[in-house]
Order: sequence, then C-alpha cells, then structure tokens
Amino acid sequence: MQIAVAGGAEATRQEYKAACAVGRLIAGSGAVLVCGGLGGVMEAACRGAREKGGTTVGIISGTGDGNPYLDIVIRTGLGHGRNVLVAQSGDAMIAVGGSYGTLSEIAIALKTGCPVFGLSTWKIGGVVPCRTPEEAVELAVEAARTRLPHAKKE
Amino acid sequence: MQIAVAGGAEATRQEYKAACAVGRLIAGSGAVLVCGGLGGVMEAACRGAREKGGTTVGIISGTGDGNPYLDIVIRTGLGHGRNVLVAQSGDAMIAVGGSYGTLSEIAIALKTGCPVFGLSTWKIGGVVPCRTPEEAVELAVEAARTRLPHAKKE
Amino acid sequence: MQIAVAGGAEATRQEYKAACAVGRLIAGSGAVLVCGGLGGVMEAACRGAREKGGTTVGIISGTGDGNPYLDIVIRTGLGHGRNVLVAQSGDAMIAVGGSYGTLSEIAIALKTGCPVFGLSTWKIGGVVPCRTPEEAVELAVEAARTRLPHAKKE
Amino acid sequence: MQIAVAGGAEATRQEYKAACAVGRLIAGSGAVLVCGGLGGVMEAACRGAREKGGTTVGIISGTGDGNPYLDIVIRTGLGHGRNVLVAQSGDAMIAVGGSYGTLSEIAIALKTGCPVFGLSTWKIGGVVPCRTPEEAVELAVEAARTRLPHAKKE
Repeated sequence: MQIAVAGGAEATRQEYKAACAVGRLIAGSGAVLVCGGLGGVMEAACRGAREKGGTTVGIISGTGDGNPYLDIVIRTGLGHGRNVLVAQSGDAMIAVGGSYGTLSEIAIALKTGCPVFGLSTWKIGGVVPCRTPEEAVELAVEAARTRLPHAKKE
Repeated sequence: MQIAVAGGAEATRQEYKAACAVGRLIAGSGAVLVCGGLGGVMEAACRGAREKGGTTVGIISGTGDGNPYLDIVIRTGLGHGRNVLVAQSGDAMIAVGGSYGTLSEIAIALKTGCPVFGLSTWKIGGVVPCRTPEEAVELAVEAARTRLPHAKKE
Repeated sequence: MQIAVAGGAEATRQEYKAACAVGRLIAGSGAVLVCGGLGGVMEAACRGAREKGGTTVGIISGTGDGNPYLDIVIRTGLGHGRNVLVAQSGDAMIAVGGSYGTLSEIAIALKTGCPVFGLSTWKIGGVVPCRTPEEAVELAVEAARTRLPHAKKE
Repeated sequence: MQIAVAGGAEATRQEYKAACAVGRLIAGSGAVLVCGGLGGVMEAACRGAREKGGTTVGIISGTGDGNPYLDIVIRTGLGHGRNVLVAQSGDAMIAVGGSYGTLSEIAIALKTGCPVFGLSTWKIGGVVPCRTPEEAVELAVEAARTRLPHAKKE
C-alpha cells in the first residue's frame, strides 16, 4: 500500500509538525510513503516516517538527491510534471496545507479516483477535511485498502 | 502570443458555445490558441478559432490526431501530465467550465505566474472571474501582452 | 504534415549548414517543422524554415522562449523527457549529426514506427542514411505522406 | 544506491535468465533495483532481486500495477516518457538485450553521465560490454559507488 503526501516545499511550523505526525502514522500502518521528495511538508512527512522505520519514496522534480529522509529517489527532471506522478502513485492521498502546487496534486488525484484527505488545505469538493493527523491517516489507510488491487491498466 | 484554453473533454451546450466564442476572439486578436486538443471545450475553442482563420495547437494526452480543428498537434503520450504543458505554454489562460482536469491546469498556471481568466469555472483565489467571452479574451490578451517577452529560463 | 528535426544543441559549421538547408526544404514542401526548439541544429533548421516562410514549432525542455526562429513554443519543463515528444510529434524524422540526446530521439521515433532519415548521424538499424538535405527531406516527406492520417489512438 | 536495469518487455529465454541473475546479484549487493516495472527483462530482474530479499522499484508507463515482483510502483502514465525517469534514477545502469525502447534508456543514461554496462545489448560508444551478469553487476556497483553522492541539482 502506498500513501501519497501532498504539500508545499515551504511549511509553517504547524504544517511541519502535522506532516511529521502524518509520516509517523503512515509508517506505523505499514504503508509506504510517497511524496515530492523535497523540503517543507515533504521533508517533514519523510522525517516522521523514518523515525518509525517506514519506507519513503521521493518523486523529485529535478535530478538531484531530494531531502535527506528518502529511501528511494525517483529523479524525474519533469518540473511541475512530477506532481501528476505523485498523485497517481498513491492509493490514497493526504494533503497538508499547501498552495497551487498542492492544488494540482489534489486535482489529479481526484481526477483519477484517488481519495484525498485534507489537513488545513484547499476546500475542494471531493477532499475530505480532517481535524487531526490520526483521523487523516486512519481514513486514508482504510480508503487505500478498499481500492487495492489496482485494476491492471497497462 | 499564445493563449491557453482549459476545459473539459465533455461540455454542456452553454460551455461549448462560450468556448467557441473564446476561440473566435482569440483568433481575432492574432494570438495562437493552445489547448489539450481533444473534445468538448477544447474542440469548441479550436473550431471557433479556425472559423476566424486563427492558428490552433493541440497538446494531446495520447499519440493520435486530436480533434479535427488542429493546425499543430503535439503528441505527448503523457496522459494527465500534458495538462502541465498546456498551462506552461500559455502567456495567459482562459478556463471554461471544467472539472478536476481543468482544475489541475488552473493550479499549474497560477503556480507558474500565468494569469487565469474564468468563465463559469472553479472559484480559486487567483482566477479572475469573467462574465462574457469578450471580457475574458480582452483581459487575457492584455495580461499576456504585459508578460512578454518571457525571461529566458533555459 | 509535421516533420521532426533531431540534432544537438551544439552544431559544427557543416551540421548547421545542413540543418539550415533541411529547414528550408521542409518549409518548401509545405510541412510544419517540429524540433526541440533550442540552439545548434534545432536553431539552424528553424532559421532555414523561416527564411522560406515555413512554420516552426519548438518543444523546449525548459519554460523559457527557445530560439528566435520559433512560431510556436511548447514549454514542457520536462528536461530530457521532451525528446520523446519531439519524436512522437513528427510524421517522419530527419536526424542531423548529434550525440546521445539525438540518439534518444531516434530510438523513440523508431520504437513508435516513425521513419528516420539521417545526415551524418548514428548508424542504427532502421535509420535511412542520406547523402544530402535534398534526399533526406524528399524521402521524409514521402514517408510522412504514406503514414497519414494517424490512426486515432486516444 | 540504485541500479537501473534496462531491457525489453519481451525477453528470450537467455535474456530472461541473465536478467534474473542480474536481479539476484543487485539484491545481494544491497542496492535497490529500479526498472520499467513491466514484463520480460524487467520482470526477470525484479523476480531475481526478490528471491534474494532485495527491494524493487517499477517506474511504469501506465497507471496499473506492473509486474508481480515490485515493492514500489511509480505510476507515471507517461508512456515512453518513463524511460527517461528510469535512466535518471539509476546511479548506474545495466542493459540486457532489448530493442529501441532499451536504446532510448541507454541514450538518456549516457547523456546524463550515468555509466552503462551491457549484456548482449546495443553496441554504442559509451556502453561497457560485459560477458556475465557477475561482471556487469560488479562493475555497475563499483561505478555507482564512485558517483555518489549526487550533486544537489534541485
């Protein structure tokens, strides 16, 4: 199971803390954490996941190394195009704060039928607003479970 | 000057009519129309532009031919990833109706500083709501003019 | 009809001259010239095409303006990923000189059934070596004609 | 450390066997195996890696599930565009057999400075031909080690 975390490369202290908790809880659930692999919310989530021994995947926009908490780094070089890959690679998505980049990830997730759970993020029809990281991760893991296995679409 | 038109592959009669008018007006302004190149709003806009002798570019998600009103077809094969290219290739964007795919185009446009003008579309901070195709195209052409030339970022 | 020109961003004097002739001949045939939109062979081909009143499309790797001889610029931001789009958007391809980037364009073209004609370029099974720009463009236009229309693959 | 394996979705019995051995040896070295995640050579390499408890990453062209031996699946939906991501995500590449798709992966790898080791594959300047899976993996791991850490290029 793969849970995507969407969020900005810059985070407020509160967003950073929430994303860290989200990462820890995803790791605790046994799911793999997938994200854009850079700073801010992405870094916080990976850091949290690593604290709990989880696996982290960064689908980065450039071709460098990403944040220091990545187990796997996908060097896309696609710029904003990588947002689409993050959205498609999650069996469910949790969005934390975020600006237009995060909005693009949410939009593609909803477009492709990936359930999205939000913490202080865009109020878009289809996004399930959550009050705590615990609520978001619990709902996301449950939603991801009912989606699997992916229909083979190759 | 390139004006991007964002909108769904399925359109209501009203959206189709509005997009057609948008296409005619873009062609009338001398700008090139860029879009996703498929049906619905995209087809309507291209059709309108062609009626007025304009140039139409379709950045399609697959590798086929796109709608019948395209002068240039870019066969990306990128799926939803092509939305990013549409947004980045406009000097301004006009969004007509639309669902999550359109929202992703709007999000990337705003992320990259491309001004967005909306007709019955998502109410997102940054999108300038317009009442008529005339208003939308006038504002978009003016906004595009002040943005040019693009800073060389290669 | 769209003819893709593949080649390096740096060109020897001979390659530049050949690419310029290729561009002029493509324009003379009435086809649209599609390329990566940057310097070297790409610039030369566009320059030649514009001299003869042709239409030029640059599918650029970044999000800037590309070379000064472009009518249409597709700002992909995809880095090397844009090579795939150049290859797929040609009804036939002409490769002039070039290094590994050009090789990737040739490979994708051949993979997708796009005929490739070469001028002093990679000797890969499937590439038809030509001695002059005239020969390359004549064969490419003929090959592109027999391929059209594209099967609808959306 | 991430080692990319390039190769066709259809494999001869010999290629399948070689790729399986490559996968086992990559897992044995402790490196993560990255590939296109589908059948043929890709499947064989993943299968071998999993036999030895290794970690496998599939960067798939579509949005489905990939082969049954993947730990992580990146659903790109990019079509042939995903080849670029496979090449960029390896610290070194091993190419097994393969046709034009594999050639495009080799070309991008060499373009970006990723060392490529070949088993019965394209004879391209820059590809180091190897006689056995053992030789290929040994050289690839060594080459990957000297490349790390990646210069930060974000």
